[in-house]
Amino acid sequence: QMPRGNLETVHHRALVLAQLRKWLDSLQFKEAFMCMRKLRINLNLIYDHNPKLFLDNAETFITQLSSINHINLFLTELKEEDTTQTMYPRSEDARLPPYKVPGTKVDVVCDALRNTMESMDPNKYCLSILTAHVRKTVPELEIALQKVHELRVNPPAAAVGAVSAEEALKYLLFLVNVNDLYEHSLGTYDFDLVLMVAEKSQKDPKEYLPFLNMLKQLEPNYQRYTIDKHLKRYNKALVHLSQCGKEHFPEVLQLVKEQKLYTEALHLFATDTTQYKELTIAFAEHLVGQQQMEQAGLLLWRCGETHSALQSFVSCCSWRHALCVAQLIPLPPDQLALLARDMAEKLSEQRRYAEAALLLDQYANDCEEAILALITGAVWDEALRLIHTHRRQDITETNLKPALLEAFSSQTAFLEAQMSTFTRHRNRLAVVREQKLKARADMLDEEGPDCVDAELYSEASSVLTGSKYSQSNSRISSRSSKNRRKAERKKLSLKEGSPMEDRALIHALGEIITTVDKMREEVHGLLKMLVLFESERQAQRLQEQYAAALSLLESAVTEVWPDNTALNNTTLTGPNSTANSISASFQQQIPAAAAPQAQAQDAEILVAPKMRNNIKWKLTV
Amino acid sequence: QMPRGNLETVHHRALVLAQLRKWLDSLQFKEAFMCMRKLRINLNLIYDHNPKLFLDNAETFITQLSSINHINLFLTELKEEDTTQTMYPRSEDARLPPYKVPGTKVDVVCDALRNTMESMDPNKYCLSILTAHVRKTVPELEIALQKVHELRVNPPAAAVGAVSAEEALKYLLFLVNVNDLYEHSLGTYDFDLVLMVAEKSQKDPKEYLPFLNMLKQLEPNYQRYTIDKHLKRYNKALVHLSQCGKEHFPEVLQLVKEQKLYTEALHLFATDTTQYKELTIAFAEHLVGQQQMEQAGLLLWRCGETHSALQSFVSCCSWRHALCVAQLIPLPPDQLALLARDMAEKLSEQRRYAEAALLLDQYANDCEEAILALITGAVWDEALRLIHTHRRQDITETNLKPALLEAFSSQTAFLEAQMSTFTRHRNRLAVVREQKLKARADMLDEEGPDCVDAELYSEASSVLTGSKYSQSNSRISSRSSKNRRKAERKKLSLKEGSPMEDRALIHALGEIITTVDKMREEVHGLLKMLVLFESERQAQRLQEQYAAALSLLESAVTEVWPDNTALNNTTLTGPNSTANSISASFQQQIPAAAAPQAQAQDAEILVAPKMRNNIKWKLTV
Repeated sequence: QMPRGNLETVHHRALVLAQLRKWLDSLQFKEAFMCMRKLRINLNLIYDHNPKLFLDNAETFITQLSSINHINLFLTELKEEDTTQTMYPRSEDARLPPYKVPGTKVDVVCDALRNTMESMDPNKYCLSILTAHVRKTVPELEIALQKVHELRVNPPAAAVGAVSAEEALKYLLFLVNVNDLYEHSLGTYDFDLVLMVAEKSQKDPKEYLPFLNMLKQLEPNYQRYTIDKHLKRYNKALVHLSQCGKEHFPEVLQLVKEQKLYTEALHLFATDTTQYKELTIAFAEHLVGQQQMEQAGLLLWRCGETHSALQSFVSCCSWRHALCVAQLIPLPPDQLALLARDMAEKLSEQRRYAEAALLLDQYANDCEEAILALITGAVWDEALRLIHTHRRQDITETNLKPALLEAFSSQTAFLEAQMSTFTRHRNRLAVVREQKLKARADMLDEEGPDCVDAELYSEASSVLTGSKYSQSNSRISSRSSKNRRKAERKKLSLKEGSPMEDRALIHALGEIITTVDKMREEVHGLLKMLVLFESERQAQRLQEQYAAALSLLESAVTEVWPDNTALNNTTLTGPNSTANSISASFQQQIPAAAAPQAQAQDAEILVAPKMRNNIKWKLTV
Repeated sequence: QMPRGNLETVHHRALVLAQLRKWLDSLQFKEAFMCMRKLRINLNLIYDHNPKLFLDNAETFITQLSSINHINLFLTELKEEDTTQTMYPRSEDARLPPYKVPGTKVDVVCDALRNTMESMDPNKYCLSILTAHVRKTVPELEIALQKVHELRVNPPAAAVGAVSAEEALKYLLFLVNVNDLYEHSLGTYDFDLVLMVAEKSQKDPKEYLPFLNMLKQLEPNYQRYTIDKHLKRYNKALVHLSQCGKEHFPEVLQLVKEQKLYTEALHLFATDTTQYKELTIAFAEHLVGQQQMEQAGLLLWRCGETHSALQSFVSCCSWRHALCVAQLIPLPPDQLALLARDMAEKLSEQRRYAEAALLLDQYANDCEEAILALITGAVWDEALRLIHTHRRQDITETNLKPALLEAFSSQTAFLEAQMSTFTRHRNRLAVVREQKLKARADMLDEEGPDCVDAELYSEASSVLTGSKYSQSNSRISSRSSKNRRKAERKKLSLKEGSPMEDRALIHALGEIITTVDKMREEVHGLLKMLVLFESERQAQRLQEQYAAALSLLESAVTEVWPDNTALNNTTLTGPNSTANSISASFQQQIPAAAAPQAQAQDAEILVAPKMRNNIKWKLTV
């Protein structure tokens, strides 16, 4: 070899690469390979230069290289990196149409070459084939070992280049860590192979022989289970263990619980077996621990554990299912009534009055309580139905009518309060906007268009970008987006003079619109009842008040959410504008790229809440 | 008088106005008035110059003018127009703080001067007071007539300037059309007054005397009713007629029907009277004609017309109320069952299966049909409950389980279809955006930054402003906003190459997200049933598919609705940008002020649909 630094070995890289590309394009792989090897150019380029061309001509590549060592060298040097993007960028006009390989580059090349070699001459390319297995992203050690084992069982005819099992194993041990290989050989459940690897390794026979002997004495399935467990392959372990017969079922259960393999285990047993039932119960217990009461109940129910199922359903207020299993048990009538009453109470606490009433009426046989629950929940229609079904018109006088008048009072008072808050916020918003516009104009006048502070006072910027507040956001980007959103909301303070006051006001106004708009159904129901019970004055007042409220909200929408948020900027490109003035006002319009989150949220605030004007709620009063 | 054109009468208007303003500011109303009268300057300026000052000094104004004629002249010339805005604009720095009067200007001035004159000397200013009544926006002719009548009944002591009833009436007739005055005198129900006016008019006594004589013979309330009706004051007519006794009730009913005064009439009769009932029935009939069946039913119900009420309730599917009245009638059990069955069928047609089931179960005593309705409606929980309540587990096998598997198939197929459409639209959107960006860049390159056509190809502009399509909108601004919105939607064609294709795609993508996101509850319910009936494979598949769909949608959101809609513009103010380039890109960002409607709608499209990630739907499968 020439000494380093000799002028003859110095090549201009661009020239070399150009030559290489020519060779590769004309499928002269051998020339390219030798040159690259000599000049230490990354061999990945052979593939990267034109992936499709390479894959289509894998056989040519193998034939030309011919040498096992060279093929192995190429395989060993494969990396995910695309060298035409990093080390050896292409010139602009040599771009290839994008070619997408199915899977990762390394795996694709390994599989393609291996398939080619196997179809050409599996014996000759034996070592390269093993290399291709081992070099994959997830090394296929077991397949490689299996091939070595085959060589031992069926030694190839002494053809040219054929290798023995011995040699192959030696080569594998050179490529892979010996302990990894030993573990994987165990995973083949083939003790010959294990011994072969163990002997080649520097392991102490006193260590592995007793373990192997112990394994050999076990029943085949249990043996495989033991190995799988040793290798932490719990799914496989479970499958093998499940085939070991009933006496090993406690171990199954333990394994399932330890490794949380519930759903996997359930697939392994017939649904009518006791094992299936025991597994189901274990699963249900696990789900209870995870607070997934309803699914636990369903599992217990389906395997006949009705009492436990009942408990689960009750604890998650899944009252319909609870009733089903209660009737399956079957609970005696008085206990069923008690159960219904208990659940009704829980449901009432959750404001689910209609469901509570159904329980009280149909299962506790207490129509009075049922009607009272419906009245409390303002489910007027249903209350009336039960009153008439049970001929309890007395309750109409004693409870329903007073409740209706009370509902009328509270609704009108609520509407009044909402409207006064709305008007206050709306007026304040007008003031804040005026102030911001003025402050911004002053700023621009005083300090010229480049003044960044002006942005602080710009109404448009605070609505569009959140100005400086959105930037402080990026500092806390490690928080979850939910938290960030929460933090963002917090900054929206309604306190007078707060920097985001305008946005806070817009937000609050939107909330009021949504709240009041949601009342349509409620108001409609109440109006009907007021008409039915001749409280027409009240119906009239409520209808007028609600209609007035809706029209006030509707009329405010265009004012609070002006269609054109940048209205005051439209004249900025007039004849009197300068590059600086355009640029300055433009900056205030640019959404801050640093704060996409705030931007998205601002877009929400920018859009007026939808009013459901299609919902008819008015009567003729 | 000097001949016209004489130089002495020519005044420089600005000088005159300046002098007038001085006088008005120093409360020299007399001088101002005389000058204005002479130079034919609109008298409204006296008030408009400083409304608050004028109102605060109304007494000074009256005292200075003193002449009834002058005061009348001023009152007669009053107009709503603000002359300082139109004829005699103020100089910039003489702007007053805005002063808002309660009501319209003419009414405010009339009332203020009238009150002042009445407190000063009602006799002296009698004619001016009458003028103030007559000049109001809605002339108060009756009050004026009443005052004339008073003068006749109690003639004032012969004080200075006191006028007789005769004179006052004459003056009124000079101000107001005689027929109007006659009608209004009738409205006072005072025949003396009527005769007084009639005599002064040129009406033929043969015409009005028989009518007046006929009226005089009537019972007082019926007399007033007749007059009110003659004057088309139907509300008053109704009140008076309602006081005429039962024999006139048919007339009441006719009046109410003709003038649709139902609610007004109901207030005039006690609720326990037959009249009230008859009116209610008439009202209900009217509401039926207006397709307001439910309220009609409520009215008929409350007045005991249960059969008609039942009909109304049935026709509008108000089944709870229908049952109430059916039980009040009471319908015999077999008819009630038939009724329940009929309504259940209607409800099923409207996909209200849970309600249909309740009717079938509780009123038609047909639990099987009830359960089948619930299964059809995929109301699994409730179907199970009824199955167990009625111990009809056989239906689980024959209907429930097959329905579950079918629901599984249709849900997975639906999800698949939605996802493939979603991916197609999403890919196409990327292509369209790319094309627009490229086309826009080309345009800018070729024709320079002032090219307006470039905007046509700008993705940002089409999303933000709707470009030229929003302008065409202004041509149809006479249409209702609903129609406009519809027209706007129509333009969103998904056809390849349509100018708004990107917006149409975004809209379609948003719709798919909303639809799929809405399935959470449905999928959750189905998953539970699949687990209960040991169809865990299906549960697994559905859960995986739905989770994958949701995460695909979620991941697309930032791509379809990029947080930063003007991302490609952020570098435009870099060191290489010129005033022109800034201006050009800025123009594309400006929302078109001409199309606020499109803008609002665009804002909607700009905002990604909300996904309800807080709704837990997954099981552990």
